[in-house]
Amino acid sequence: MSNEPRRAGRHFLQIPGPTPVPERVLSAMSRQMLDHRGLEFQKLGKRVLQGVKGLFKTAHHVIIYPSSGTGAWEAALTNTLSPGDKVLMCETGQFAVLWAGMAQKLGLVPDVLPTDWRVAADGNTFEAKLRADKAHEIKAICVVHNETSTGCRSRIDEIRKALDAANHPALLMVDTISSLACTDLRHDEWGIDVTVSGSQKGMMLPPGLSFTAISDKALAASKTAKLKRSYFSWDDMLANNANGFFPYTPATGLLYGLAEAIDMINEEGLENVFTRHERLAEATRRAVRAWGLEIQCRDPKFYSPAVTTVIMPEGHNADAYRKIVLDNFNMSLGTGLNKIAGKAFRIGHLGDTNELTVMGALTGVEMGFELAGVPYKKGGVQAAMSYLAETARTRELVAAE
Amino acid sequence: MSNEPRRAGRHFLQIPGPTPVPERVLSAMSRQMLDHRGLEFQKLGKRVLQGVKGLFKTAHHVIIYPSSGTGAWEAALTNTLSPGDKVLMCETGQFAVLWAGMAQKLGLVPDVLPTDWRVAADGNTFEAKLRADKAHEIKAICVVHNETSTGCRSRIDEIRKALDAANHPALLMVDTISSLACTDLRHDEWGIDVTVSGSQKGMMLPPGLSFTAISDKALAASKTAKLKRSYFSWDDMLANNANGFFPYTPATGLLYGLAEAIDMINEEGLENVFTRHERLAEATRRAVRAWGLEIQCRDPKFYSPAVTTVIMPEGHNADAYRKIVLDNFNMSLGTGLNKIAGKAFRIGHLGDTNELTVMGALTGVEMGFELAGVPYKKGGVQAAMSYLAETARTRELVAAE
Amino acid sequence: MSNEPRRAGRHFLQIPGPTPVPERVLSAMSRQMLDHRGLEFQKLGKRVLQGVKGLFKTAHHVIIYPSSGTGAWEAALTNTLSPGDKVLMCETGQFAVLWAGMAQKLGLVPDVLPTDWRVAADGNTFEAKLRADKAHEIKAICVVHNETSTGCRSRIDEIRKALDAANHPALLMVDTISSLACTDLRHDEWGIDVTVSGSQKGMMLPPGLSFTAISDKALAASKTAKLKRSYFSWDDMLANNANGFFPYTPATGLLYGLAEAIDMINEEGLENVFTRHERLAEATRRAVRAWGLEIQCRDPKFYSPAVTTVIMPEGHNADAYRKIVLDNFNMSLGTGLNKIAGKAFRIGHLGDTNELTVMGALTGVEMGFELAGVPYKKGGVQAAMSYLAETARTRELVAAE
Amino acid sequence: MSNEPRRAGRHFLQIPGPTPVPERVLSAMSRQMLDHRGLEFQKLGKRVLQGVKGLFKTAHHVIIYPSSGTGAWEAALTNTLSPGDKVLMCETGQFAVLWAGMAQKLGLVPDVLPTDWRVAADGNTFEAKLRADKAHEIKAICVVHNETSTGCRSRIDEIRKALDAANHPALLMVDTISSLACTDLRHDEWGIDVTVSGSQKGMMLPPGLSFTAISDKALAASKTAKLKRSYFSWDDMLANNANGFFPYTPATGLLYGLAEAIDMINEEGLENVFTRHERLAEATRRAVRAWGLEIQCRDPKFYSPAVTTVIMPEGHNADAYRKIVLDNFNMSLGTGLNKIAGKAFRIGHLGDTNELTVMGALTGVEMGFELAGVPYKKGGVQAAMSYLAETARTRELVAAE
Repeated sequence: MSNEPRRAGRHFLQIPGPTPVPERVLSAMSRQMLDHRGLEFQKLGKRVLQGVKGLFKTAHHVIIYPSSGTGAWEAALTNTLSPGDKVLMCETGQFAVLWAGMAQKLGLVPDVLPTDWRVAADGNTFEAKLRADKAHEIKAICVVHNETSTGCRSRIDEIRKALDAANHPALLMVDTISSLACTDLRHDEWGIDVTVSGSQKGMMLPPGLSFTAISDKALAASKTAKLKRSYFSWDDMLANNANGFFPYTPATGLLYGLAEAIDMINEEGLENVFTRHERLAEATRRAVRAWGLEIQCRDPKFYSPAVTTVIMPEGHNADAYRKIVLDNFNMSLGTGLNKIAGKAFRIGHLGDTNELTVMGALTGVEMGFELAGVPYKKGGVQAAMSYLAETARTRELVAAE
Repeated sequence: MSNEPRRAGRHFLQIPGPTPVPERVLSAMSRQMLDHRGLEFQKLGKRVLQGVKGLFKTAHHVIIYPSSGTGAWEAALTNTLSPGDKVLMCETGQFAVLWAGMAQKLGLVPDVLPTDWRVAADGNTFEAKLRADKAHEIKAICVVHNETSTGCRSRIDEIRKALDAANHPALLMVDTISSLACTDLRHDEWGIDVTVSGSQKGMMLPPGLSFTAISDKALAASKTAKLKRSYFSWDDMLANNANGFFPYTPATGLLYGLAEAIDMINEEGLENVFTRHERLAEATRRAVRAWGLEIQCRDPKFYSPAVTTVIMPEGHNADAYRKIVLDNFNMSLGTGLNKIAGKAFRIGHLGDTNELTVMGALTGVEMGFELAGVPYKKGGVQAAMSYLAETARTRELVAAE
Repeated sequence: MSNEPRRAGRHFLQIPGPTPVPERVLSAMSRQMLDHRGLEFQKLGKRVLQGVKGLFKTAHHVIIYPSSGTGAWEAALTNTLSPGDKVLMCETGQFAVLWAGMAQKLGLVPDVLPTDWRVAADGNTFEAKLRADKAHEIKAICVVHNETSTGCRSRIDEIRKALDAANHPALLMVDTISSLACTDLRHDEWGIDVTVSGSQKGMMLPPGLSFTAISDKALAASKTAKLKRSYFSWDDMLANNANGFFPYTPATGLLYGLAEAIDMINEEGLENVFTRHERLAEATRRAVRAWGLEIQCRDPKFYSPAVTTVIMPEGHNADAYRKIVLDNFNMSLGTGLNKIAGKAFRIGHLGDTNELTVMGALTGVEMGFELAGVPYKKGGVQAAMSYLAETARTRELVAAE
Repeated sequence: MSNEPRRAGRHFLQIPGPTPVPERVLSAMSRQMLDHRGLEFQKLGKRVLQGVKGLFKTAHHVIIYPSSGTGAWEAALTNTLSPGDKVLMCETGQFAVLWAGMAQKLGLVPDVLPTDWRVAADGNTFEAKLRADKAHEIKAICVVHNETSTGCRSRIDEIRKALDAANHPALLMVDTISSLACTDLRHDEWGIDVTVSGSQKGMMLPPGLSFTAISDKALAASKTAKLKRSYFSWDDMLANNANGFFPYTPATGLLYGLAEAIDMINEEGLENVFTRHERLAEATRRAVRAWGLEIQCRDPKFYSPAVTTVIMPEGHNADAYRKIVLDNFNMSLGTGLNKIAGKAFRIGHLGDTNELTVMGALTGVEMGFELAGVPYKKGGVQAAMSYLAETARTRELVAAE
């Protein structure tokens, strides 16, 4: 089907990132370049650095890299740790697997607690390990906040409490690549040491920027950390950032977009952004349940507001189904990764999206089942509509009278 | 509700035009200006004039005005008629009313056949009048091909036959503002003398351009027509167009977009564009019927592929309902115009749209009924999904094996 | 030379309009369409109508048409005059010729005072005619403020005084298509009755919009004017505009750009915009004089701040020269029109431009002379630089200390 | 001067990168995101990887990172070398200094040959060191092809010959960040092992992408290199790239732009791009000499086609001068870096630029001298014009007859 005629209308990009970029952000990024050593750039640099702090809910240090989120993973590890250091992780899914693999490549010793990929990490996950580690050999805990591959969200606040309860000095590092600006994240309040994120999910930007928030404790650790680093070295960055500049050429175009995206998030209100994500996620889950299908995340405690991973009925290949949906309805759904490849697909409902976009997507999922001969019960779309109508603002307004 | 927080996600613009402009067209229009008397412009001018001919299915004369479609209405009348000339029209809805009003202002004598606004014109509409007009006082018949206010489509081919059957020399003028590139239109084959259209509907452009196709007979009439005209005068236009230029500064930016839009239509295939519109319209009508509501167009013969006008249940104001939909679901539906103001709303499904966009829109309509307390039966969205799944390409491919 | 390799770098578009569109305006115009009958549009409509009033310096009525400036010419005539009415004009150049031609087509009787195309109109131009017209047969004086073909600017204030001195009731109509937002224009203070303008010159927009300012006297005239009009009829426009709406679909995309352009002009300051144009024009004229060439405008009183028309030395074709400049230096200069075709070329220095752009253009003009074998003296560029350096802000700041 | 009124017209961005991004590239980058694991992305991935090979003139391996050029420096070192390895460098200027500093941070032992920053490296530079290194302790030579801080271009072909003559196995690594697509670079023919580049100079893109070309020898070295690496690791990249995909989310938006930029370069012709750069650079140098100022690069053998660094007369601060130019003429010139800070400024003439843009810039430089009271001789602009006119295509065409 290579020489397809043009597909009309808007593509429904329902993967869990990159997410659709709002036209305000695309417009902002179409601005011409400027002198990255001049006053005008300086204002931009200060503005975006300040704005990112707000999103991380931190009053401390933030960094913006011209890199994918993967780069900020590396920065977190190499700036704070030394060769042979032990890091504790939880295999929440594919992205935890990749981060652990990176730790190994960099000369660290990851200890990865397994899961069945249907839950995320919470207060209990690391407790035993932490208590057992009297010698404090564990130098850091690395957790994926929202595991993009499974749609399970970890409980960072509980993990902090577990660390405190165990009186353990390990650094707490959190990957919020697919959770920042989707669900609440409190770098300072939750005592996170390094928060890592990226531009192409809740931040509504194209990929190409990564973000890091750094606690004073992590910054102190960086003074003695022995892993080699240069591009991702915090010290040069922070030194230059103090004046709004960067140690090497920043990704100017994406920074224009970042400034706009931050404005948009603040105009909507960060907490409103979270509420919107929760509501669209719940609508999606109600559809899945009504279809009689199983949600990959098996404990509501861990439900993700950003992505819902759906398990395909036995005997039906998720990727064959995804292809039918793409070919017939011009919609991209997320593929199952690693051990759930072919067995699950993902519905992204994060970033700059809304009720009708998600509903359009759910009709595509339901019609796709019909076309692909996947056994399902009718009524998923209806269930989602009922929920969204019930929870619509007008109802609240009426109730409030 | 003036200081609303930002509404997230894509606005669903489901009015019957202006329609969403595809990003390829927006990109094309962001090109810098050029010398409108230079060689590069000349190539563009020739290209778009040729492309528009293809859409009108004419080998004769076409004109592109920097004006709204209303301007091309005026051009059709003033270039071919003389003060006091009688023109025969059919009041298919609001746009027929407006065109007749214009004819009057310009010094013509419109004879407007009434309808109940729930049908369009066909072969019978004008027959009696034409046969009775032995003196050939009727100089032109003016018909709206797709009446945007009611969602009724006239049968131009039948009207042509009626003219021929009556052996009547009146010019046939057709407004295709909301039908061009939505439904079949054959300027030459159907013997239309002046076809009028605009940029902001099936053409997927912003408003600001209008198009006209002109038969040799109409061109001959323009040599003796006595109505005054200058801006919209055909002669200067056609003379300059012969070389790809224009008698006054053309709307360069919109012409860039027009070139791209024509390419996109041809890439999809003009007949495929028509089929897509028919299918999305039928899905919409099935939803309306399943909701237990009435379609303004009461005869399937006249169903519009571009817009469906829905009659609100007695006692419910369509505009109050539209406001609830806009406030809650970020979707604009079309308002009822003139005598159906408040009594009907319109769902646009024309231009660069597709299954999931229309389905998203229909979920918004259905949820809106719920919120507004409009009496309706559940199942409209379901009915539309069933139809789209049944008629999906995959089904056809399977059937073809 | 049709299969030229790509020309690198920015094209220098030095014609007297369309002018380069600033990226802020292009970005604004890349915004998606909206419901032109909704609240959001209404705000936009009110905003641009108010903004245009500021540029015309009027507290009265303004209109924005989806048309080229030529359309607003037609609107000015048809809304205020009746068949056979006498209008007094001055042939300042090609655009005066065209406006007079339009008047004739529309059934008016233009009386066109000749010039040698090297001056514009001032207080003396019409004086004798007005005094002689005891019967007040002259219903309107139509003047081109800045004659784009010759680079001569008329003195509207003087013409007003001449009308007053003659105690003549004729309407004063002024074409400011290439002067609005380039040079001072005071619709109310100068007692203009109809001011006509367009989007693609000082307004920094693509072509496709025209503007009109209307005095109460002109509005009163429109109540009895007998020329037929519909598309350009003021009454429907003003009635709809009162609420921020339009009687037919407005050119939404261009209105987005208009709002941005007005903001940009106000950010710079309208009087600063005028000063900038004067300064760049003077630099250009100094270059022309230093080259030993003649400026088409032979009286400094009439020098245009928007465009400089340069007379080619005898025996050298201006268009052959322009082609050499275009082929070698990627710059478009304006062609000579009508009776100065081939004998003159035009340098546009209007709209969103600045010192270095104009200087770059002047180097292209000077190098073009060298390549084309046109006799000239070296030093034009040097003269322009000297003037711009002398008059630079830094100098003023120093002087002010 | 913080609340400046808006500066009109196009900013002249004459720093040696980021360079102005052509509107075709900006348009391409305004395209919506897509599924980076889908077929459509795969086509894009293969297309840009193939295109980049052409620019490097290599048939071997290329990599595209979401990072600044600095990231590709790190990739070059960490993928091929081991802790304690000796690398030979030449301090051509600030960027050589930075690369050496990075090598040190990463645990390598750079041996940096000094210069006075007024020449670049050639065949003689490393000869003695190489011959003396009988034990082959030098594992790599790292050279900056075009030293952006000084405007000196190294002779890579000669360095290759010196390596061959010494029969030395060191890897040859070349930084072409500001030379790729500005001047000839032959990865394969010149036997370069790792070529490093970036997006924001000759490539006409915003910053945010870096490029690497890798010889088979370098690839073999990467199998045993002991420096730690993950984000910049070649193996994952090359494995994924084989199918057009990437191991982590690529910078989709910039890749859209890259595809367009490669098309534009090929439409102009890569060799034509080089010739254009040489010609504009020579024009600039002639201006500098005519002004009586000194060019930082003191040997014509090393003249850069991308940037000209100009030495300020004693007693005049280059940055104060630059500020005057920016404030008065809306032009950014490059600042002097490190040991020539305040003593020199840089004129960028690279990327998507042309004669009139460079001439406009040179007029700004000359007028800036006047305003700043910098002693100079008039005539620089005149000298540049004479050269450009002499070497214009029309002359060649005439000469060819």
